Amino acid sequence: MHTDNRDEMRDRIIEAALKRFTHYGASKTTMNEIAEDLHCSKASLYYYFPDKNALHFGVLEKAGETFFARLEKVAEGEGATVDILLEMARVRHIFAKRFCRLELFKVLRDKQIDTTGDVFEQARQRETAMTAKVLQAGIDRGELAPCDVQQMAVLYIQSMLGLRLSLANGAMSDDISEEGFETVRQWQEQFTAIFIKGLKK
Amino acid sequence: MHTDNRDEMRDRIIEAALKRFTHYGASKTTMNEIAEDLHCSKASLYYYFPDKNALHFGVLEKAGETFFARLEKVAEGEGATVDILLEMARVRHIFAKRFCRLELFKVLRDKQIDTTGDVFEQARQRETAMTAKVLQAGIDRGELAPCDVQQMAVLYIQSMLGLRLSLANGAMSDDISEEGFETVRQWQEQFTAIFIKGLKK
Repeated sequence: MHTDNRDEMRDRIIEAALKRFTHYGASKTTMNEIAEDLHCSKASLYYYFPDKNALHFGVLEKAGETFFARLEKVAEGEGATVDILLEMARVRHIFAKRFCRLELFKVLRDKQIDTTGDVFEQARQRETAMTAKVLQAGIDRGELAPCDVQQMAVLYIQSMLGLRLSLANGAMSDDISEEGFETVRQWQEQFTAIFIKGLKK
Repeated sequence: MHTDNRDEMRDRIIEAALKRFTHYGASKTTMNEIAEDLHCSKASLYYYFPDKNALHFGVLEKAGETFFARLEKVAEGEGATVDILLEMARVRHIFAKRFCRLELFKVLRDKQIDTTGDVFEQARQRETAMTAKVLQAGIDRGELAPCDVQQMAVLYIQSMLGLRLSLANGAMSDDISEEGFETVRQWQEQFTAIFIKGLKK
């Protein structure tokens, strides 16, 4: 039971941090404010997260878990391949916007570029694997022509990333405007339709 | 005639610099060495290029002109859309490899990031415009379905860029291996075929 309580408290801290970050950004939020929100001592906060970096990574991890759980649910759903990929793009879009609001790119990039790179590399691989499954399902249904699904998934995910990176001169950034997000969303939708048509029988 | 002579000398300097940069890299080449290669005084070198940055930009400009002249020739050629785009990708590939050997990314990035960004942004726009023309020709021949060619060209060029940037964690870089270049070349070929199939009638 002790372990459960610890996990529960950890989750509550992350949830409180997520709320604060969403409204004020990660850089402007203090450990003090989070402790106050939770009516707990700073000491107990530091018991779970020895420093702000640890908290940022905790939040990043939690956000990632939520993202992948949603993405996976969509990926395993039924329907035409293009519709599944469009829905996955929508989940990605909503998550990217929320993630920018947390200002975690800024905070993490300033401090731990390498680790952040790893996190995004891992995320990209997971997204690629999910996409490969969606393409395989399309082939199995007879909708798409047989192909190397892993390779096609790499092409698709990399291209989608290219469309997004175009906004910020090739770098991950928090400074993307509403309008910029909307442009990329439209580009990615059009692109997905063309790419899947190109893979059809 | 005086102007012609000046232009000629400027071209000769750039050519000598290109040779040196190709063999030893821009960062390791001195103005002295270029003057020696040309059997001219350092003073007359500095008359045309007040500093090494000016020379680097001269070389970059020249390389860009050659690149675009070749790309344009291919873009205006005849044949199936996919073949023209594949040939354009090949020109881009050869140029990118040569450009990396010059080590100009490294040198320019260290000193004048903004201007380099502009140069690449302009290049991207020119490539996009050329691609739009190729797509329009494909539509006119009845090979491709009617579409917004400017928009489709943006999607294509951005995706191709995304496939390339994947190698260097989203940044322009000189540090791309032979093997890395070959991977991107294959990805871009496969991608071009799928994209154009997706635009067909």
